[in-house]
Amino acid sequence: MSEVSELRKDPITGRWVIIATERNKRPKEYSTLRGESRPGICPFCPGNESMTPGEVYRFSPSGGGPLAEDWWVRVVPNKYPALVSEGEVTRRAEGMYDLIHGVGAHEVIIETAEHQAPLASLTKAHMREVLWAYRSRIEEHSRDPRVGYVLIFKNHGPAAGASLEHPHTQLIATPIIPIRVREELRGAENYHEYKDRCVFCDMIGQEERKPLRVVEESSHFVAMNPYASRFPFETWILPRFHASHFDTLARSESDDLADILRRTLGRIWNALDDPPFNFMLHVAPPRNPGLAYYHWHIEIIPTLTTVAGFEWGSGFFINPTPPEEACRYLRAASWEVPRPRAGEPARVAGA
Amino acid sequence: MSEVSELRKDPITGRWVIIATERNKRPKEYSTLRGESRPGICPFCPGNESMTPGEVYRFSPSGGGPLAEDWWVRVVPNKYPALVSEGEVTRRAEGMYDLIHGVGAHEVIIETAEHQAPLASLTKAHMREVLWAYRSRIEEHSRDPRVGYVLIFKNHGPAAGASLEHPHTQLIATPIIPIRVREELRGAENYHEYKDRCVFCDMIGQEERKPLRVVEESSHFVAMNPYASRFPFETWILPRFHASHFDTLARSESDDLADILRRTLGRIWNALDDPPFNFMLHVAPPRNPGLAYYHWHIEIIPTLTTVAGFEWGSGFFINPTPPEEACRYLRAASWEVPRPRAGEPARVAGA
Repeated sequence: MSEVSELRKDPITGRWVIIATERNKRPKEYSTLRGESRPGICPFCPGNESMTPGEVYRFSPSGGGPLAEDWWVRVVPNKYPALVSEGEVTRRAEGMYDLIHGVGAHEVIIETAEHQAPLASLTKAHMREVLWAYRSRIEEHSRDPRVGYVLIFKNHGPAAGASLEHPHTQLIATPIIPIRVREELRGAENYHEYKDRCVFCDMIGQEERKPLRVVEESSHFVAMNPYASRFPFETWILPRFHASHFDTLARSESDDLADILRRTLGRIWNALDDPPFNFMLHVAPPRNPGLAYYHWHIEIIPTLTTVAGFEWGSGFFINPTPPEEACRYLRAASWEVPRPRAGEPARVAGA
Repeated sequence: MSEVSELRKDPITGRWVIIATERNKRPKEYSTLRGESRPGICPFCPGNESMTPGEVYRFSPSGGGPLAEDWWVRVVPNKYPALVSEGEVTRRAEGMYDLIHGVGAHEVIIETAEHQAPLASLTKAHMREVLWAYRSRIEEHSRDPRVGYVLIFKNHGPAAGASLEHPHTQLIATPIIPIRVREELRGAENYHEYKDRCVFCDMIGQEERKPLRVVEESSHFVAMNPYASRFPFETWILPRFHASHFDTLARSESDDLADILRRTLGRIWNALDDPPFNFMLHVAPPRNPGLAYYHWHIEIIPTLTTVAGFEWGSGFFINPTPPEEACRYLRAASWEVPRPRAGEPARVAGA
């Protein structure tokens, strides 16, 4: 077994998987799934910065350096990376199979110093700095010629795959363009070839003309429940202007995005009582500036249903709440999420 | 809102979703996900046959009719169907979006009368009758010209999406060919065009020449951990002979399949301590007999990891146990699963 992860390709569908050969989890180690928790010291809380070596980004409102203790946002390497950045991308065959050595990157964006402050409770100014950290890290990794794609995603709550409670987002840079991204790119390109218009721009146009599924609107962005929502309360945020890449976002736009993101997450929080959720930032691959057919967006999916045999076997999803109904509930909910009280001690436990 | 489910198409990727408009679940109804359980009378236990009206199939070793109480296997309509069989398939547009009314079928195959007897604990003769029920129902639905695909799948354990504890499999017939099936068909067809060989036959050949990932072998079948396993301990069972459709299975082959299926499920059961799992029977769409490029198979996926933002956003899966290691553990495990003791009262609770 090699030291780094292997990317292996399914010879039937062309889907790639990451085989984390260095972890090599034994059967008994999977029992953590059955409700056991891992208490301990939170490595993302202030004072424990030395537990996360190799800080690659920091925002402090005072403009302080790496020793300043008033940081709002930090970015550090993931301690258990799915992919590592050392080495060259090597491709080879194993008989009929295809293999790539798992070069890439895996980082954690710590959204706030406050262990108890969920993303939706951050101030607009603070949320903007979280988004700016996303933008900066995407920009940085996009310069690496070995990188095929940069994915930003967030897991909130154990049921949505979060292994630490402290609010954080993750970044994974992969040496190839992932299959779901290729599917979106291909579909959007086909539509553009046929219509000479962006499919996402057309969706926004139709939703705004007859707003059955629009949750929030601002000068630059719209939040909506997509017509073919896979999951109940699935919500997308899209720029109303056409843009394929996130790293061209202007400072004024990030202000507006910060506002609509916290309002949207706040409505989901209140309508569903702090549900576990994932969000993913879908962008075009690097080094393809200004694609006419692709439109970046954020997909938020609360974890309310269980993905089971039917979904795995078919790719069909069964959604028991029509998006029009989800939209009604979200619009009726408050968007304000209470901040933790000042002086309230942060729990120092992993989840 | 209409009475039947709607199939809606995502305009970007072409992926279809089933919007269960008649259920229309409100936010509070999703709280069952957070560990609440629903006790009650098991509708699948003997004596409660009247709770499942409209039985469409039954196997009794005595050959008894619908009143015989010695049944081994029954097939009944799902009480909360994702798709219903009445009506015509109607297709229409909603602006730029595409919609099909959700005609199809949703059935439950009750695998045994014994509430406490997991599939892996059934005798070979009993397991064969479960497989024969799959075959018969696929054959039956394949005759319906409105049916585009018939998927057989099983959810075992609440974490894998089972809402009832009594051992059962499900069947969903859909009016279109699901996207994951189309991807497999397309990939397998491309490979066949290029090589003039079936990709599945080639995989079996490579695995048998160098058996690093072969869990079980019988005269007609092989069970193996695929090279690019998405999930830890993912295991496939394939016929060693080429066949695209399950409903051409001969009686002697079903005997052999029954044996390898219970041995494989038994090894998974013992190696992982009765894990939650899904399995899916992948077959070619009906009315395409004898496809040279497609090869039916069963995919078994234990639910050991949480699918989260990275997987949803990329379609990449991170598998922390290499299939070669999974295979070692499965081969070292016993395949025997104890039968519940005779006379032990069945718990009559849903999970």
